[in-house]
Amino acid sequence: MSIGFRIDATSKQVRAGRLHTAHGEIETPVFMPVGTAATVKGVSQDILEDLGVQILLGNTYHLYLRPGVETVRRLGGLHGFMAWPRAILTDSGGFQVFSLNELRKVSEEGVTFRSHLDGSSHFFSPESSMAAQIGLGADIIMAFDECTEYPADRARTKASMELTLRWAERSKRYFEEHKGEVPWSFQELVPSTQYPEKSTASAQGIARASDRVLGTGYSAQSLFGIVQGGMDLELRKESALRTVEIGFPGYAIGGLSVGEPRECTREMIEATLEHLPADKPRYVMGVGTPEEIALYAALGVDMMDCVLPTRAARHGLLFTSEGKISIKQARYAQDAGPLDPKCGCRVCQRYSRAYLRHLYASNEVLAQVLNTLHNLSFYLDTMRRVRHSIRLGEVPYSF
Amino acid sequence: MSIGFRIDATSKQVRAGRLHTAHGEIETPVFMPVGTAATVKGVSQDILEDLGVQILLGNTYHLYLRPGVETVRRLGGLHGFMAWPRAILTDSGGFQVFSLNELRKVSEEGVTFRSHLDGSSHFFSPESSMAAQIGLGADIIMAFDECTEYPADRARTKASMELTLRWAERSKRYFEEHKGEVPWSFQELVPSTQYPEKSTASAQGIARASDRVLGTGYSAQSLFGIVQGGMDLELRKESALRTVEIGFPGYAIGGLSVGEPRECTREMIEATLEHLPADKPRYVMGVGTPEEIALYAALGVDMMDCVLPTRAARHGLLFTSEGKISIKQARYAQDAGPLDPKCGCRVCQRYSRAYLRHLYASNEVLAQVLNTLHNLSFYLDTMRRVRHSIRLGEVPYSF
Repeated sequence: MSIGFRIDATSKQVRAGRLHTAHGEIETPVFMPVGTAATVKGVSQDILEDLGVQILLGNTYHLYLRPGVETVRRLGGLHGFMAWPRAILTDSGGFQVFSLNELRKVSEEGVTFRSHLDGSSHFFSPESSMAAQIGLGADIIMAFDECTEYPADRARTKASMELTLRWAERSKRYFEEHKGEVPWSFQELVPSTQYPEKSTASAQGIARASDRVLGTGYSAQSLFGIVQGGMDLELRKESALRTVEIGFPGYAIGGLSVGEPRECTREMIEATLEHLPADKPRYVMGVGTPEEIALYAALGVDMMDCVLPTRAARHGLLFTSEGKISIKQARYAQDAGPLDPKCGCRVCQRYSRAYLRHLYASNEVLAQVLNTLHNLSFYLDTMRRVRHSIRLGEVPYSF
Repeated sequence: MSIGFRIDATSKQVRAGRLHTAHGEIETPVFMPVGTAATVKGVSQDILEDLGVQILLGNTYHLYLRPGVETVRRLGGLHGFMAWPRAILTDSGGFQVFSLNELRKVSEEGVTFRSHLDGSSHFFSPESSMAAQIGLGADIIMAFDECTEYPADRARTKASMELTLRWAERSKRYFEEHKGEVPWSFQELVPSTQYPEKSTASAQGIARASDRVLGTGYSAQSLFGIVQGGMDLELRKESALRTVEIGFPGYAIGGLSVGEPRECTREMIEATLEHLPADKPRYVMGVGTPEEIALYAALGVDMMDCVLPTRAARHGLLFTSEGKISIKQARYAQDAGPLDPKCGCRVCQRYSRAYLRHLYASNEVLAQVLNTLHNLSFYLDTMRRVRHSIRLGEVPYSF
């Protein structure tokens, strides 16, 4: 069996649940940190475990280019390669081809694009994306889609949606035929489950991985479908219904956070969720701020990912209970207080704003390390609070 | 009382001992990692604690320029500023003025130099270096010296040595008059001693800091003198004898590792050590490779520091029990083995050479973080083995 999803608590459209994968259980709604090139930039895997990260996202586009799928596959897939025993999700590569390539060429067959590293020419199709994602061996992999640009007129949006639907069928077909080729097996999982005992993960309410894997039978990859349809409510509905008709164990809402107003993002999410089956996990790709992820969870979204906490950290932008802080500002140069007095992360427990400001101003690598650690902690705490509210029967957001 | 030094075991000229400071005990011979700008580049303080680091080195020149001594002083000195409860040593700034400044001007009074950051003009004298180091508040601070360039003729070397001796007297005089101005006090130390309990330091044979500070009375800074004299054995002897005559609680051998052959470095160290009191700690500045630090410890050196393990790590050069490895090499791209099979550090315990090679080749920040962690671990393990050998009555090096 590939994946399990159990809803524990609901309150109106909101729900808290658990995703079961071959690499452990994930409490939902969940925020997934982005580990583009098999690393969350600057943060080591043991610290991610300590933070309570239960699932990471990897980018197929980047990993395909470097170190290459075959290298990762031979080393046991992403789990073995990056020594991460918990769950992983990979995207299809489609979004990066869309966002990093001015010169891409889309055809019925797939997309020709140039590497942002060396300009070399490459081709992604639903089949090759599936092959790459099977080689990388994430627990959850994504159908190859076209992310419709913004703005786009109705004809263009519909044509793009239809292409994504045809590609979804091809993705599913290839996946069904090849999913046995995943580079890990049930047996291989057992040793890796020893990792969590080293960390404080169990103290954070996470069951030991060995309890999860042994006997659960969640030993295969899962392929999720992706809903497109631009900013058109009718097309979103049609895309959702027809993607559900193809049939996947989970559904993502793609094509958002591409430049549209935030109110529009929310409208699209709400309208699309209605047409997705309530008993399957629902994933909004590429969002958002702490307020947004709490809001979308309150709309009934189960999974989200975003580069914002990690990328903002590299620019010295830190999320706190008192709002966003730009640590580079001179006003923090003598500030002996913690970054966020309400935060329990190891950065806020140990270092002053003055020290963090000094590290950033001095271009010290530790600035990125500590800033990223804090921002991820803040995001994960936000989702922990959201899940707690849902389990208490509250709607975790004031509309 | 400023500092205590107890020799526990000797074997010929070699000795193992303990330095007692207001911020804990240091087992000697010790290698001190360099934390130039109040950070060991890329490694957080809790990891340094876990590695068993008992004393860090800070660079007065860099800290004076950024964030400035007054900022550090107000935040409780370097210990408070960087949240490091264990011992710290600062250099005098003299060596950086020497190595980073083509345009410095040396006079009897001191050195005028330009900031490598913004070209602004600054002046260091024995008095201003002491004032800066008292403000930074390290446990051990260094006399302001002139590092004689290499090569230098006898007249130049002697003149430089005489200047260093006059500066040593001025350093001592200023320090004696102002040492009460250190930004930490006995009372302030007590809370910071809670830190080590969080780490695994105690498992590594380090007594709890609270046991060390309470009741020991080591609550002040210590000023060490520095022997110069270039590569001239007679001048080294004269410099040593006259520096000892001025009188310090510890002595450094400076002016080495400035381009001379390694055999010469060793000869200078051996010749100088003879003339330093056996009951005081002896510190060789700016050395060396793992083999060299083991060798110098076997000659009777108690303290060493070097940027080599941290700087080499940033260039992908890793020290292992099988020799030096350049992790960027393509031969490691598929290598599933640990970096060093005999190393117990968290990098070697978790990650493959292939993963470390990927991180380095992809210019990922985690490469620097993990490489530095391993290299420091290797250096600290080397010194741990050396101390163990000495305590067993062995000379820890095969000459």
